[in-house]
Amino acid sequence: LRNGYPEVIYCEGKSIEHIKGIVESMLKKDNNILATRASKEVYEGLKDLTDDIIYYDLAKIVFIKKKEIKKSKSKILVATGGTSDIPVAEEAAITAEVLGNSVERLYDVGVAGIHRLLSNKHRLLEANVIITVAGMEGALASVVGGLVDKPVIAVPTSVGYGANFNGLAALLAMLNSCASGVGVVNIDNGFGAGYLASTINRQIELALNNY
Amino acid sequence: LRNGYPEVIYCEGKSIEHIKGIVESMLKKDNNILATRASKEVYEGLKDLTDDIIYYDLAKIVFIKKKEIKKSKSKILVATGGTSDIPVAEEAAITAEVLGNSVERLYDVGVAGIHRLLSNKHRLLEANVIITVAGMEGALASVVGGLVDKPVIAVPTSVGYGANFNGLAALLAMLNSCASGVGVVNIDNGFGAGYLASTINRQIELALNNY
Amino acid sequence: LRNGYPEVIYCEGKSIEHIKGIVESMLKKDNNILATRASKEVYEGLKDLTDDIIYYDLAKIVFIKKKEIKKSKSKILVATGGTSDIPVAEEAAITAEVLGNSVERLYDVGVAGIHRLLSNKHRLLEANVIITVAGMEGALASVVGGLVDKPVIAVPTSVGYGANFNGLAALLAMLNSCASGVGVVNIDNGFGAGYLASTINRQIELALNNY
Amino acid sequence: LRNGYPEVIYCEGKSIEHIKGIVESMLKKDNNILATRASKEVYEGLKDLTDDIIYYDLAKIVFIKKKEIKKSKSKILVATGGTSDIPVAEEAAITAEVLGNSVERLYDVGVAGIHRLLSNKHRLLEANVIITVAGMEGALASVVGGLVDKPVIAVPTSVGYGANFNGLAALLAMLNSCASGVGVVNIDNGFGAGYLASTINRQIELALNNY
Amino acid sequence: LRNGYPEVIYCEGKSIEHIKGIVESMLKKDNNILATRASKEVYEGLKDLTDDIIYYDLAKIVFIKKKEIKKSKSKILVATGGTSDIPVAEEAAITAEVLGNSVERLYDVGVAGIHRLLSNKHRLLEANVIITVAGMEGALASVVGGLVDKPVIAVPTSVGYGANFNGLAALLAMLNSCASGVGVVNIDNGFGAGYLASTINRQIELALNNY
Amino acid sequence: LRNGYPEVIYCEGKSIEHIKGIVESMLKKDNNILATRASKEVYEGLKDLTDDIIYYDLAKIVFIKKKEIKKSKSKILVATGGTSDIPVAEEAAITAEVLGNSVERLYDVGVAGIHRLLSNKHRLLEANVIITVAGMEGALASVVGGLVDKPVIAVPTSVGYGANFNGLAALLAMLNSCASGVGVVNIDNGFGAGYLASTINRQIELALNNY
Amino acid sequence: LRNGYPEVIYCEGKSIEHIKGIVESMLKKDNNILATRASKEVYEGLKDLTDDIIYYDLAKIVFIKKKEIKKSKSKILVATGGTSDIPVAEEAAITAEVLGNSVERLYDVGVAGIHRLLSNKHRLLEANVIITVAGMEGALASVVGGLVDKPVIAVPTSVGYGANFNGLAALLAMLNSCASGVGVVNIDNGFGAGYLASTINRQIELALNNY
Amino acid sequence: LRNGYPEVIYCEGKSIEHIKGIVESMLKKDNNILATRASKEVYEGLKDLTDDIIYYDLAKIVFIKKKEIKKSKSKILVATGGTSDIPVAEEAAITAEVLGNSVERLYDVGVAGIHRLLSNKHRLLEANVIITVAGMEGALASVVGGLVDKPVIAVPTSVGYGANFNGLAALLAMLNSCASGVGVVNIDNGFGAGYLASTINRQIELALNNY
Ligand SMILES: Nc1ncnc2c1ncn2[C@@H]1O[C@H](COP(=O)(O)O)[C@@H](O)[C@H]1O
Ligand SMILES: Nc1ncnc2c1ncn2[C@@H]1O[C@H](COP(=O)(O)O)[C@@H](O)[C@H]1O
Ligand SMILES: Nc1ncnc2c1ncn2[C@@H]1O[C@H](COP(=O)(O)O)[C@@H](O)[C@H]1O
Ligand SMILES: Nc1ncnc2c1ncn2[C@@H]1O[C@H](COP(=O)(O)O)[C@@H](O)[C@H]1O
Ligand SMILES: [Mg+2]
Ligand SMILES: [Mg+2]
Ligand SMILES: [Mg+2]
Ligand SMILES: [Mg+2]
Ligand SMILES: [Mg+2]
Ligand SMILES: [Mg+2]
Ligand SMILES: [Mg+2]
Ligand SMILES: [Mg+2]
Repeated sequence: LRNGYPEVIYCEGKSIEHIKGIVESMLKKDNNILATRASKEVYEGLKDLTDDIIYYDLAKIVFIKKKEIKKSKSKILVATGGTSDIPVAEEAAITAEVLGNSVERLYDVGVAGIHRLLSNKHRLLEANVIITVAGMEGALASVVGGLVDKPVIAVPTSVGYGANFNGLAALLAMLNSCASGVGVVNIDNGFGAGYLASTINRQIELALNNY
Repeated sequence: LRNGYPEVIYCEGKSIEHIKGIVESMLKKDNNILATRASKEVYEGLKDLTDDIIYYDLAKIVFIKKKEIKKSKSKILVATGGTSDIPVAEEAAITAEVLGNSVERLYDVGVAGIHRLLSNKHRLLEANVIITVAGMEGALASVVGGLVDKPVIAVPTSVGYGANFNGLAALLAMLNSCASGVGVVNIDNGFGAGYLASTINRQIELALNNY
Repeated sequence: LRNGYPEVIYCEGKSIEHIKGIVESMLKKDNNILATRASKEVYEGLKDLTDDIIYYDLAKIVFIKKKEIKKSKSKILVATGGTSDIPVAEEAAITAEVLGNSVERLYDVGVAGIHRLLSNKHRLLEANVIITVAGMEGALASVVGGLVDKPVIAVPTSVGYGANFNGLAALLAMLNSCASGVGVVNIDNGFGAGYLASTINRQIELALNNY
Repeated sequence: LRNGYPEVIYCEGKSIEHIKGIVESMLKKDNNILATRASKEVYEGLKDLTDDIIYYDLAKIVFIKKKEIKKSKSKILVATGGTSDIPVAEEAAITAEVLGNSVERLYDVGVAGIHRLLSNKHRLLEANVIITVAGMEGALASVVGGLVDKPVIAVPTSVGYGANFNGLAALLAMLNSCASGVGVVNIDNGFGAGYLASTINRQIELALNNY
Repeated sequence: LRNGYPEVIYCEGKSIEHIKGIVESMLKKDNNILATRASKEVYEGLKDLTDDIIYYDLAKIVFIKKKEIKKSKSKILVATGGTSDIPVAEEAAITAEVLGNSVERLYDVGVAGIHRLLSNKHRLLEANVIITVAGMEGALASVVGGLVDKPVIAVPTSVGYGANFNGLAALLAMLNSCASGVGVVNIDNGFGAGYLASTINRQIELALNNY
Repeated sequence: LRNGYPEVIYCEGKSIEHIKGIVESMLKKDNNILATRASKEVYEGLKDLTDDIIYYDLAKIVFIKKKEIKKSKSKILVATGGTSDIPVAEEAAITAEVLGNSVERLYDVGVAGIHRLLSNKHRLLEANVIITVAGMEGALASVVGGLVDKPVIAVPTSVGYGANFNGLAALLAMLNSCASGVGVVNIDNGFGAGYLASTINRQIELALNNY
Repeated sequence: LRNGYPEVIYCEGKSIEHIKGIVESMLKKDNNILATRASKEVYEGLKDLTDDIIYYDLAKIVFIKKKEIKKSKSKILVATGGTSDIPVAEEAAITAEVLGNSVERLYDVGVAGIHRLLSNKHRLLEANVIITVAGMEGALASVVGGLVDKPVIAVPTSVGYGANFNGLAALLAMLNSCASGVGVVNIDNGFGAGYLASTINRQIELALNNY
Repeated sequence: LRNGYPEVIYCEGKSIEHIKGIVESMLKKDNNILATRASKEVYEGLKDLTDDIIYYDLAKIVFIKKKEIKKSKSKILVATGGTSDIPVAEEAAITAEVLGNSVERLYDVGVAGIHRLLSNKHRLLEANVIITVAGMEGALASVVGGLVDKPVIAVPTSVGYGANFNGLAALLAMLNSCASGVGVVNIDNGFGAGYLASTINRQIELALNNY
């Protein structure tokens, strides 16, 4: 583990007792700890273990900070199509932040009202890596991909119903993006997007002699 | 059959002899005839039956004109995402035209280069009904649907490969459009889109006392 | 927003507190407000905010009326195959009504008893736009589409079980309708059908100089 | 094998030499022989083996008649939605006939023009078993099932394109028929439908003391 | 409605109040009433309306008997692969019985222990119509279809897990049965199987002059 | 590579020149060579490279024998449902043989005629490992699995049409087998089945001190 | 039933009363009893029936031991990709143990940290049969299959989300393993894997004259 | 277009005449031109238009070089699982090269023989961005992703058969990778992977002041 890099727990499907046990043994190493898909109850179960603990409820992330986190010069922008996509976007954003990245947010700029996105084009241009989070027909990734010549990470969300098939519609749309330069992660996988963006950013920071 | 309304033959999977027989018996009624999914060979097989025959090779349509076609005042605009979608768009456009509609074309305005579409916004605003034809991720329908408050008919095309699954990606995207006011037809069904647009236009023309 | 046009909230997956916040800020603009997929609890949470509020429980719609709604001359007919399809049909009908349309209902006329539909053919003929709502095998759209030469909007519902796959059977059937002039919206998307019908109707009203 | 019952060969994917070998050894037993999915070339390869051979090209069936076939009193009616469904319907009809059944045909009575079906209702009422053959949205089975109280065998065909998925749309529709009393066979399985109808008819003939 | 034929209510997704209302109005006509997919609570809600009411809890059927039911001479046999398939089998059996048919049961004769089925072959031979109910790989229909030359109705059940996909595995297996003479109904559709068997049986009874 | 073990080439999609190059370089090591999915043309292209070459045309296998192959004491039995499954079965059988196993064949014992299988039960009992190869509904694996308490390897084949979906029906059936002790390989993967059977057999031979 | 072989109950979807009844009647035969998919409540319901009862809560297995179980010389190794796969692995391991096999465990050796697996290669080499249990992308089966020349049984688990489709991703990966010698069972089917491994082991024990 | 950046043509489904027309008009602008999915025939049709043309037949790419291409300091490594994946890998590699990137190749290092990959770990560590190209079960992406902390772009290929469903198995596996930091592109989309890698590399070069 590089300095400041957190150890990661995926809480989904694990009992609070089980998670507590893992965290306790991790705490001995004095590393930062990132627990994703953590319900409020998980946080309640962990919060007496240490003072350096914080709960991001939108992102459903518990973070325990034992070491300082360096802040990258290069920037990751996280954009969403709607407000319902925000929880997944926050999972991506918080993940990227605790991995040492500067993160910007640009939420609710979906293609049904394309002008909100276009009037924020300067923010797209300032970023080094862009994460687009969208459900329903997932068109945001293509429009953003067409506007910039930068790595775009697309996260389909399970927002929608009927022939959405729990995010399949957005997933297929993103894989078939007519814009070049789009890489896709699993449905609702904010963590994976934040992590991938971070690996990209890290290469940039290394080039900047920032690591 | 209303005056000027064509009889329709769907040629896919029918032998030229079979199609010829159908056309010959139709010709006795002196109506216009619209044959879709007609290969060049079908046209060759039919062209000696009558002088009033024309072949639209992009649209793969044979049209036999025995009666004058009235031209609607209200307009149908057919837009495509890419150039590969043009054959399906032409099937829609020619179908609408021979059903008596004024048709405009706006091709290759896909979302990967959103500015081409935006700089043609006035053309969207002039139309009464819009047909959007797109493959890959099919995002055009959503962007157009967000720009106008008019009926938008979405035609997914089978243009694409891999996880496109022969048009499934675009189909699902269009059914899940985050813009309201979008009705979807079958993959590659230009005819159906042209026909549906025509039924809408006809209600408008009736209101205008134009029929 | 055109005069009388409501602002729209989609309540599914939003907390009552969240919805309340949105409505409160919308109320400042004095527009009508349409909240779809609203449970009884959502209504309870909103009803003290204003007197001009009404709950349509079959449709699961909350409507807040601040401005008068003009009534269209041209008519939308909403038909269902069975009684289980009525909630989706009501979502379509109420949506269309609050968007200013005259709406008629013709429920439980499914194809297993074709004569009930046929004995109501005059009602199909009086309408300008028809919405067909059906689950199971979704055949209603095809039969209606064959009886009239008007725009037919087909809404597949998730009514059924087993190989119905939550509405997929009806969705595919409607996309493959052997009758021309059918546009399909997402499974259970009554709102989308009502909205699309309304965009069509609006073009007719404009032609009638009724807007 | 009951008297007059044919031996059956399914020719798809078998070489002509292979089929010829099977037929030659079958001929020794002097039974009738039914070869399905037989191309013209298969027939050419077999026709010198015996004089009692006939080729049904629409049905793609070769039949070799060595024993007289009794004709049932009760009747099987085979109905199709369109003309493209006729080859599958003929596979069903010829199969049923060579199995000893009286077979009627009622073709091209699809639901987009419901009146052609309704004006033939007496023919539905005269039959004891009805086979409905339809592609696209496969609605014919439901409408027929609603009109009669008899066993209806539904054969989905692969006629269609796009979201038809080679007959899947019709298959799902038929499995979800809102009319009771419908049994479904595999896509394009005319043989299976003819055979099943024949087993039903045979029970009736036994009751009539006709066997 | 023929004499003794019940009116049918499908209770799934209907409120008890709604069902009660339907039954009350049906009771005025003094016909028998068959309510399927009825929970114990539905029965509790109905049982004070009439004395002639009975609840089949395995089948989840409420039956109200106002008219005598004739018993057919010809027999329907209902067979299952496992004990978990019995509820669906009972839905089929009770449905057939209240429609006036003699019904036999042969449960838990699945193909993993083929000898239990073979040692009951005489029972298969005594029946006129056979309903096979099976989940998992649904092989029972094929084995039974190979043993008899009678109509076999196959009901796939949703018994299974994982790649069973809620009955899809059994459904596909039954549609692809290598034995001829098998007609398939929807997953878990015991009612449909019982009804179809009854339409077949009725043709036999008519031939026997038993109706 | 163990003594006598062949090197393996999968020829599908490789050009003859490419295959020839691979074989030439392999020949230098003097090992046996097994080339699967090899068309007649591939064999023609290879046959001048060495005398010790043989073509199994049913199995589409080219085998080059440079070293003697030991014969196992324990036996693999390969069974098929129909005759159309034989090519896949032969791929399995020849693969197992060139890997040093004693192989028996039991073809065309599908469940539609269960007695042919049952009258060969002694052959199932004599084998140590059984490979069942079946298309359509793939029920053979379940019936065999129920008759013996031995490892059963199930190979679904793509034999079938329509809702068979190129072997998916048989694959799902085999994965859901109600008989225990069945392991499944990919559709048409005779090679994989033969190889897996061979790894099992090898453990037995090692126990017998036969290796 | 061979000596010591348990009778098996699959508890999923059965009521505790029902299970109790089955166990009571089984107890009369004094065989061992294996109840899978048994919740804690099932165990509570059974534990007063006999003293020889034990509950494996990770595996969700109740085992009743009435006869001694012989221990095999040859070994089954059960490996998992992650910790979330352990319940399925334990179902396999306990099943194999109560069927008389020596079982080793090697958990949490997934491919994202390939070195943990490689540093345990000796344990793979000591085993006679290997069961690999993995969710997500299921790559463990391929890597293990490439490292050893032994039968590998692959169990996909439903661990994952989104485009995992409840285990489908791992199932397809395992069926398409690029390593030879892999047989696959149903998603989450630990029982089936343990049973299949046991049938293989039994052939080895017979060869060792250990049975 | 940035200096040296090629214009891109996707040739699939376009006629040679059409492609020629596009290239001729592009040539006027004196930019580099990249034509993907170009058959040998396409190259033959274009080669007389200019001298600066080259055909990469494995990659099926035509490249016309009118401007010098700068070479990046940071490196893209392209790895494949098998030799059948090489055409897709070459599409990625050539694309990245003509976009100005240094590209390394590491082919045929699939997980069935994990040691070939491990013995090349230094090459993984020297790269800044890694593209993994794999068919069948697509496990390479996960293993590579676990070995390095760098952006990994995963390209599923359609190499495989049966339950591979033309690349679906590898696609799902890659989307569900248990290793973090993996972004996925469409099946066989070598171009997209090369392009995405290039956008990442460009950010690194900008940081290095190399652009
Ligand atoms: N029942 C519905 N189904 C699909 N979309 C809806 C529905 N009701 C409202 N919408 C859409 O959701 C948008 C509001 O979404 P939101 O901002 O999340 O409340 C509206 O503008 C409509 O386009
Ligand atoms: N068109 C068909 N579709 C499905 N099964 C058929 C068809 N024609 C014949 N069969 C079946 O195939 C069997 C003959 O198969 P085979 O022995 O391969 O020639 C017959 O007994 C029928 O059960
Ligand atoms: N279990 C069942 N599955 C499918 N359809 C059923 C079932 N039970 C009843 N039905 C059908 O549902 C109709 C009654 O539906 P409803 O009017 O909604 O109560 C009956 O006429 C039957 O055709
Ligand atoms: N976890 C399991 N998954 C699949 N099949 C199982 C499982 N456990 C037991 N079985 C099978 O289920 C049979 C018992 O089923 P039942 O008679 O319904 O209790 C056993 O003989 C096994 O073949
Ligand atoms: Mg871009
Ligand atoms: Mg709009
Ligand atoms: Mg119409
Ligand atoms: Mg009926
Ligand atoms: Mg039979
Ligand atoms: Mg067994
Ligand atoms: Mg191996
Ligand atoms: Mg990594």
